[in-house]
Amino acid sequence: MYIALDLESEEPIYTQLKNQIIAGIAKKELRSGDPLPSVRSLASDLGINLHTVNKAYQQLKQEGFILIHRQKGVVVNPDGVPSVDEAYWSEITKRIHPIIAESVCRNVTEQDFLQLCRQIYAEFQSKE
Amino acid sequence: MYIALDLESEEPIYTQLKNQIIAGIAKKELRSGDPLPSVRSLASDLGINLHTVNKAYQQLKQEGFILIHRQKGVVVNPDGVPSVDEAYWSEITKRIHPIIAESVCRNVTEQDFLQLCRQIYAEFQSKE
Repeated sequence: MYIALDLESEEPIYTQLKNQIIAGIAKKELRSGDPLPSVRSLASDLGINLHTVNKAYQQLKQEGFILIHRQKGVVVNPDGVPSVDEAYWSEITKRIHPIIAESVCRNVTEQDFLQLCRQIYAEFQSKE
Repeated sequence: MYIALDLESEEPIYTQLKNQIIAGIAKKELRSGDPLPSVRSLASDLGINLHTVNKAYQQLKQEGFILIHRQKGVVVNPDGVPSVDEAYWSEITKRIHPIIAESVCRNVTEQDFLQLCRQIYAEFQSKE
């Protein structure tokens, strides 16, 4: 899996890294149980700070995407990512809400917005 | 317009403030040319730092939601918020992409996701 970071982006590096790993899992480029590089080796490959990789990994671990074994190293959660539950549902509502509010202000029609979401969904589903 | 901040949230206060003002505009509780409180008075009303309000206002100004006049004070952009353009379209794509990636991992169906977006859109449209 190829990871491309934009060091000039306003988006923190650890968030970019986290999102790309999640996208890799969504696209099935990374599958349950697949190994990920150690913090040290990923930081060195990407030319970024150890703490940045560690922060991304810790959040991914906390959210159930990966496991961090002392011996086996880092792997994509072998049991699969936990399915949607009430907490996640309320979290994505909170995340989408401001995006839609802004889109309403900018006269993005509901149809165009839904079409964009369908396109993004299709990106992930074509890889199955 | 009522502003409720969650001081214990992980979401920065200035982002919460900014998002609520945008939601107010989307819901037409705030209309073009409507005055907003000064930085000082809003900070004092909400019991938050001047710099926090200032940061939210500066971003809202930069994104075309409000104008900050030296004399007339702060107002909702009298010309209306700039409509969607290519830059905004690419920005919302970037913002929605990781949310959908995570939803795919968590087995949120496309239908459920679109339904959630429709519900949020409806929140704003019922107020017209």
